[in-house]
Amino acid sequence: MGRGVANIIARQTPQLAPLNLKITRAAVRNLTPARQAEHPDIALTTDALSIVNDPNIQIIIEVLGGIDLPFALLQQALKNGKQVITANKDLIATHGRELTALAQQHHVALNYEAAVMGSIPILRTLNTNFAGDQITALAGIANGTSNFILSQMQAGSSYTEALQLAQQKGFAEADPTNDVEGLDASYKLLILSRLAFNLDPKLSSIQRLGITTLRRADFAAADFFGYTIKPLVQAIRQNQQLRLSVAPTLVPKNHALAGVANEFNAIQLASNNTNSLTLSGPGAGSLPTANAVVADLQAVALNLQAHLTPTNAATHLEAAENLDLPTQQAISLTSNGVVTGLDVATQLGIHGQIFASGDQLHLLTQAVDRHTVAQWQDALSHFVGIQLHHILPVYDPTVRGFVEKFQSDEKKMNITA
Amino acid sequence: MGRGVANIIARQTPQLAPLNLKITRAAVRNLTPARQAEHPDIALTTDALSIVNDPNIQIIIEVLGGIDLPFALLQQALKNGKQVITANKDLIATHGRELTALAQQHHVALNYEAAVMGSIPILRTLNTNFAGDQITALAGIANGTSNFILSQMQAGSSYTEALQLAQQKGFAEADPTNDVEGLDASYKLLILSRLAFNLDPKLSSIQRLGITTLRRADFAAADFFGYTIKPLVQAIRQNQQLRLSVAPTLVPKNHALAGVANEFNAIQLASNNTNSLTLSGPGAGSLPTANAVVADLQAVALNLQAHLTPTNAATHLEAAENLDLPTQQAISLTSNGVVTGLDVATQLGIHGQIFASGDQLHLLTQAVDRHTVAQWQDALSHFVGIQLHHILPVYDPTVRGFVEKFQSDEKKMNITA
Ligand SMILES: NC(=O)c1ccc[n+]([C@@H]2O[C@H](COP(=O)([O-])OP(=O)(O)OC[C@H]3O[C@@H](n4cnc5c(N)ncnc54)[C@H](OP(=O)(O)O)[C@@H]3O)[C@@H](O)[C@H]2O)c1
Ligand SMILES: NC(=O)c1ccc[n+]([C@@H]2O[C@H](COP(=O)([O-])OP(=O)(O)OC[C@H]3O[C@@H](n4cnc5c(N)ncnc54)[C@H](OP(=O)(O)O)[C@@H]3O)[C@@H](O)[C@H]2O)c1
Repeated sequence: MGRGVANIIARQTPQLAPLNLKITRAAVRNLTPARQAEHPDIALTTDALSIVNDPNIQIIIEVLGGIDLPFALLQQALKNGKQVITANKDLIATHGRELTALAQQHHVALNYEAAVMGSIPILRTLNTNFAGDQITALAGIANGTSNFILSQMQAGSSYTEALQLAQQKGFAEADPTNDVEGLDASYKLLILSRLAFNLDPKLSSIQRLGITTLRRADFAAADFFGYTIKPLVQAIRQNQQLRLSVAPTLVPKNHALAGVANEFNAIQLASNNTNSLTLSGPGAGSLPTANAVVADLQAVALNLQAHLTPTNAATHLEAAENLDLPTQQAISLTSNGVVTGLDVATQLGIHGQIFASGDQLHLLTQAVDRHTVAQWQDALSHFVGIQLHHILPVYDPTVRGFVEKFQSDEKKMNITA
Repeated sequence: MGRGVANIIARQTPQLAPLNLKITRAAVRNLTPARQAEHPDIALTTDALSIVNDPNIQIIIEVLGGIDLPFALLQQALKNGKQVITANKDLIATHGRELTALAQQHHVALNYEAAVMGSIPILRTLNTNFAGDQITALAGIANGTSNFILSQMQAGSSYTEALQLAQQKGFAEADPTNDVEGLDASYKLLILSRLAFNLDPKLSSIQRLGITTLRRADFAAADFFGYTIKPLVQAIRQNQQLRLSVAPTLVPKNHALAGVANEFNAIQLASNNTNSLTLSGPGAGSLPTANAVVADLQAVALNLQAHLTPTNAATHLEAAENLDLPTQQAISLTSNGVVTGLDVATQLGIHGQIFASGDQLHLLTQAVDRHTVAQWQDALSHFVGIQLHHILPVYDPTVRGFVEKFQSDEKKMNITA
């Protein structure tokens, strides 16, 4: 990504040229004479701290990765009065509040558009589009690796085949845990929730489920019920309460998010004034992500030119409480061939649809609260003759807009400016 | 819309409150004591010019409509050093260059996010997301009225029925000409092209076709060919050349734009760095559009607080030349029952698919340039036994990215910051 950023800056587009940006120093781990020779204008070093402490540098772009080292470096950079841009979602999810407070204290910018959904300008949109509005819910596909794997499974691959293809294509790392267990998406959901709701939920408050237990039959069942399975992040707000989830989720086939395939990301926002706004695009890749860094860079450089103190990050976050909303569920079971879906439904009081394929049973349930899901989970783990595979949530795009709407007020007023 | 803006400001959200915005005066056409009594805090007047000349006012929001009066008012407002926000696409398409120049000359803002695609923050995205990038193409649905009508026709309505329903629901005006003839979308395409490409095309350079000649059979034929029909605006760039079109267009069924239904708008941007970015949402409606005005207002007020001179509009536009790109076409004919689709195809040298329904013939052609389309048009208007109905363009999402890509450069560099 650092290479992509340097590359874009080197092109000096008409918008960038007047900003007079110049990369003077860069940190690398492996510094060789040959590598330095390739970049005569940029002084390479293995000592990143020396860059952060260089009084001639105004802007620091952090694209190292990791948490502890960049945290120490960026704290120092902010204390030194430098503008900071980072693409590091792990860092921002973990230490975003401290870094934001430090940036405000030292009147400098801390921008991290590239950290969430690559080239999709979601953070800037959250910061600039909802001044007179309140966001009530968001739903999206925030992890390209998971979306690629599920898209391949939708098309008939097994989980293992899909993961291998993702690794071959560079969409999944050798150790894909962070992506396929929903951790990466959870970090992004935390960052999005802070900016969208001005609330500060904990990582542990996210109902998180990975994609590793999905089987082909899950897709067949979802298809039969009228859905496709997508790796969804969801946040629903009601006053100070949030319901947050990261899970392979049944999405109605005709819904916009169902059409977002492969490594693409998307996010949909529901708000009082605008009903719904959707953004989608490539969520990763060095060039799209570098493009987001450069957009942040433009904003920072324009502010520097105008001697303007940036203030667009959420700083006064309130604690978030958990919200429990009834949601439909898709239960996946393996049966011994004697127990039928109807047996299970009758025993547990499930109303809905049943899909059977070989020894696998799938039930689409009525909307129930978390407590009932936990009870079912418990009952099913003791149910003789079946084996519980997993329980996936179902996305209901109509569950939105909890806060009173403007429409009713509107009739009372009658002014045109 | 004025009412919506006042309403949102009156709510004083946490983001708006610190901006200390206060509506002190408003212009209306019909001023009655009862109307004034409803708004004790806002001095109403029928003399809009007196507001523009009021030294106590810093920001003017123009939501009157029309062209000549708002042009005169906003010129005066800018000369008086006031920040200006408008939702008026006709005005900006017609006089945007003069007004932008005037705004720059007087160091004030001229913002018009609400003028294009309602609540979708497309202008801000064009201004802030592509500093290091170059947009190569855009395609979108910019007119909610036309999209609503075509969505109804897709579902089986006739054009007349669909138009009536749109009028009943408030999506179409009593005189729908501007919308259904593609003029409204053309204005938006001009504004988008200026910001996306820094080029200044003429209204007359747009290949424009209205939706009024569409029949049910067009949808059946499109469906047979694997497409749906959408009211598309398209711009494709190659150096200083642009190909601009506004027309009911065949869009592949599985393409994201095919799923944007009813009154919704959407836009897709192709660029060198980001591949493709899509934004969609409600394109009109008083509240979504008022929300966009308030977003502009926040930007303007933040700049005012920081004594910052805004400079985000495209000012140095270059003239655009016409670009001719081969495009597939869908030809719709009425036959006397003797002439077949094959006769027509053979005679004109058309390779592609044929769909016949009653006396109507539909041909999906190979990609051809404008000259060939004109020749066919001419030949078909003299062809004995058939009557030419219309020729619709076909959208090819793969025709993008003409300018050399970064990827090739990337391998040469090897720097990480
Ligand atoms: N790539 C993407 O698509 C993407 C998307 C969104 C966000 N991000 C984020 O961007 C960051 C970087 O990602 P990446 O894919 O560009 O990673 P990468 O290819 O591993 O690049 C990291 C670079 O930082 C240098 N570096 C690491 N530790 C260092 C240290 N202690 N001192 C000096 N230099 C050091 C490395 O130097 P050497 O070259 O000498 O090893 C390498 O050049 C991560 O936070 C990632 O989450 C990436
Ligand atoms: N509504 C939308 O969804 C939407 C979306 C995008 C853009 N826009 C744009 O927003 C603008 C306004 O649209 P709108 O739907 O709000 O129109 P509208 O309902 O007709 O409102 C126009 C208002 O301006 C006042 N007005 C008109 N001419 C005036 C004059 N000469 N002096 C003083 N006051 C005058 C009218 O006063 P009276 O009330 O006394 O008649 C009326 O209140 C248009 O440019 C439109 O293209 C609207």
